[in-house]
Amino acid sequence: MTNKLTLALLQLPVGNDVAANVRRAVSAVTQLKADNPKLQLAILPESFNAPYGQEHFPKFAEAVPQGATCTALSQLALKLGIYIIGGSIVERDAGKMYNTCTVWGPDGKLLAKHRKIHLFTMKIEPENAGGVEFDEAAVLSAGSDLTVVQIGQQKVGIGICHDKRFEELARIYRNMGCTMIVYPSAFCICQGPMHWELLQRARATDNQLYVVTCSPARDNMSGYVAYGHSMIVNPWAQVQREAGEGCEFIVEEIDFDVVEQVRRQIPIFKQRRTDVYAKAPKL
Amino acid sequence: MTNKLTLALLQLPVGNDVAANVRRAVSAVTQLKADNPKLQLAILPESFNAPYGQEHFPKFAEAVPQGATCTALSQLALKLGIYIIGGSIVERDAGKMYNTCTVWGPDGKLLAKHRKIHLFTMKIEPENAGGVEFDEAAVLSAGSDLTVVQIGQQKVGIGICHDKRFEELARIYRNMGCTMIVYPSAFCICQGPMHWELLQRARATDNQLYVVTCSPARDNMSGYVAYGHSMIVNPWAQVQREAGEGCEFIVEEIDFDVVEQVRRQIPIFKQRRTDVYAKAPKL
Repeated sequence: MTNKLTLALLQLPVGNDVAANVRRAVSAVTQLKADNPKLQLAILPESFNAPYGQEHFPKFAEAVPQGATCTALSQLALKLGIYIIGGSIVERDAGKMYNTCTVWGPDGKLLAKHRKIHLFTMKIEPENAGGVEFDEAAVLSAGSDLTVVQIGQQKVGIGICHDKRFEELARIYRNMGCTMIVYPSAFCICQGPMHWELLQRARATDNQLYVVTCSPARDNMSGYVAYGHSMIVNPWAQVQREAGEGCEFIVEEIDFDVVEQVRRQIPIFKQRRTDVYAKAPKL
Repeated sequence: MTNKLTLALLQLPVGNDVAANVRRAVSAVTQLKADNPKLQLAILPESFNAPYGQEHFPKFAEAVPQGATCTALSQLALKLGIYIIGGSIVERDAGKMYNTCTVWGPDGKLLAKHRKIHLFTMKIEPENAGGVEFDEAAVLSAGSDLTVVQIGQQKVGIGICHDKRFEELARIYRNMGCTMIVYPSAFCICQGPMHWELLQRARATDNQLYVVTCSPARDNMSGYVAYGHSMIVNPWAQVQREAGEGCEFIVEEIDFDVVEQVRRQIPIFKQRRTDVYAKAPKL
């Protein structure tokens, strides 16, 4: 049985027209599958269907899975017979809004939805890498569930952007048997140079699995400028593939035998001292 | 009250003569204090008093704190009125041996001893960065206690080399209020290029504190070749100072206000979702 998976990262531009954004994504995935018949999984960026920003969220919120964006993704997955990790959209549910990633199976069925657990709220001062101020928590509600999906032979953990700053979440996914974690992300250009690659390589080396991010293309004219640099980091913590800043698609075959190779050679999982960690003071 | 601390990393060569190794360390610390009256903390490498290697451990094991190496460090701390994080030595106690770091106060008293919790046992194959095979666990026993010491105004967590691969230990230290973690380390030249800097920057960015390592100088003629590159990483995860491969001493003033600056601007500690992490399946 093959232990390989061919995936695509679609670092798409995102404009103000939701229908056009979704059409562009559908068209790009369709073309990539035509060009790469082995393609099994397409990954879209955070907020791929609408501009990212507190003021935009209420305008573009949709029901999951009944809304137009989900319907398009479901039909696309079914038509092409592939998995889709649908970046994220703003979900409206019972008067609340969430930053939500939907995952679709080759049969067009919703495998899971992940609501961003850690909302992006911070204020970095301008003297530090240009600064950033954002308060997702002012508008959105946070998810409260772990999300692990089965994609082919692999267990895949899902997080969204700021979720990847929290190593405890990645640790849980690894303990649950994940061999890959996917974080659709619209990291800002302030944090990007400091921490984007570092965080992914950190999660990869501590948990000995693949870490994959997919960002919108950078648009310096938009209100919120995404960093780009969608990336695949392998279980040795090497950057296996990396996009630039603009619109770019990466197609890559991932070899999950590497996960086992690293885990055998650097056997840190079985060397964990949970007996000692249990001595931590309760705070 | 000042929130600064001046520390020294002593990336010392280590030969076969224990007494000579200890004399060299004492002499170097004494000279650094003479040249830098503000020096408050000296940090020595893992296995600074004897060659590192399974075959060497029984020969060079000493009692803690009665042995000759500890006696010299205690006297040195008292004479200079500084803290010393005494790298590590092989400790013999009740028929067992440990890889042990001793920490000394300016009054010459033993503040703490840290026995390496995660023993260095691995076998990386030669095609991966030259490979390494080592089995500390065949000879040494593992420690089972967390070690946090008060140095001036700061709480400092202690680990030894392989301990830094385990992000759960660093998380505990940060939760306990540490603003710095010090890992005396003799990382190997196989893992060094892959993971040495990455692991330190990962711990620094996840826990928003200083991470400091002190390695022996590289000696390509020794049985076990240490990587060198002793390092100070700041809470932004920037490499603030880094040694080369040879014998080198770094003296640096650390500003702990930076810890608070980072924690205020990127408030991930209070954004942790312990309610969600508690949902992890018990394995």
